Amino acid sequence: MVSVTTQTLTVRAPRRGLQDIIDPVARLVSKSGLATGMCTLFIRHTSASLIIQENYDPSARVDLETFMDRLVPEGASWMTHTLEGDDDMPSHIKSVLTQVSLSIPILDGKLALGTWQGIYLWEHRDRPTPREILVSLY
Amino acid sequence: MVSVTTQTLTVRAPRRGLQDIIDPVARLVSKSGLATGMCTLFIRHTSASLIIQENYDPSARVDLETFMDRLVPEGASWMTHTLEGDDDMPSHIKSVLTQVSLSIPILDGKLALGTWQGIYLWEHRDRPTPREILVSLY
Amino acid sequence: MVSVTTQTLTVRAPRRGLQDIIDPVARLVSKSGLATGMCTLFIRHTSASLIIQENYDPSARVDLETFMDRLVPEGASWMTHTLEGDDDMPSHIKSVLTQVSLSIPILDGKLALGTWQGIYLWEHRDRPTPREILVSLY
Repeated sequence: MVSVTTQTLTVRAPRRGLQDIIDPVARLVSKSGLATGMCTLFIRHTSASLIIQENYDPSARVDLETFMDRLVPEGASWMTHTLEGDDDMPSHIKSVLTQVSLSIPILDGKLALGTWQGIYLWEHRDRPTPREILVSLY
Repeated sequence: MVSVTTQTLTVRAPRRGLQDIIDPVARLVSKSGLATGMCTLFIRHTSASLIIQENYDPSARVDLETFMDRLVPEGASWMTHTLEGDDDMPSHIKSVLTQVSLSIPILDGKLALGTWQGIYLWEHRDRPTPREILVSLY
Repeated sequence: MVSVTTQTLTVRAPRRGLQDIIDPVARLVSKSGLATGMCTLFIRHTSASLIIQENYDPSARVDLETFMDRLVPEGASWMTHTLEGDDDMPSHIKSVLTQVSLSIPILDGKLALGTWQGIYLWEHRDRPTPREILVSLY
């Protein structure tokens, strides 16, 4: 017998890049009243993704974006999937190299993250649209 | 009290590359009668992996394979794990850079994927063998 | 109704690189008495990560480390997050490219890993500190 409850969190990033989403996720965990369990996040898109990363020094996030933009260049000569713009195919690649789902334990009614761990939506498109993230608690 | 049921899906890809596996996974979800819950996929191999990726335009998958083949070249001079062929070590690396497990919520008796999300087995070897994917429903 | 039990496994790697952690994880699964279920591992750090990889030939792990060190060089001119040493920012990037959480089915009271699959802590820092890995069973 299992009981998974899933809610939708809709986030529109103000710009391409890493957007902190820990507050709305933590609120859903807190409202659930769940003392012990799991929280699984799932993003319903293929040009934005999820990561857990250092939440303290913004320079780490800047370097992460720089690394990924250098690794997956836009407008590469071998790219064929180009109808939706130069940032589209790189977005799919970056999504595959990061995460579509994350599972985080809940302990004492809270996400059991490490001290320096934040949860981020990584918007890979230049013109962000609203993104649906499913938050499953069990 | 938990109740996880796990079944094995065996898939032999016709060739190296991305193979759509959404139909057999969706059938297992449908047959389970589970209205709300989670579906976790786990691949029992280290030279093939799982991803969720754009399911509409095949060119996106072509570019994804091109990117990965350029990122992880075969026969690099620094490779030492070469007994099983030039495509073996790159397969392990590609597996680590993508996913061994994926967790997808179930809502209304169906996988709660986004409109453009497909589930793929990524076969990294030139001569595909049958691959076991465990499908856990809870 | 769900029942997730989470325990903390603390591992201090003897050196930077891949450290086999399957024995302590398997012991927790065995002690739980759980016949069927899931095991989710979650690492509470952003400069070490988790992977499942080939457990037979050590040369595969050597090549995996070589690949990642070549992909994410230390002391790159564009890096700005450098206060904690040259190996710090590359550690964050390597963590994002690999896994913070892994979900493995339990069957017949054991982790349902493939024959050649091992579970590894990937310590990315030169001077390893104790790492907390949460092991959730359900």
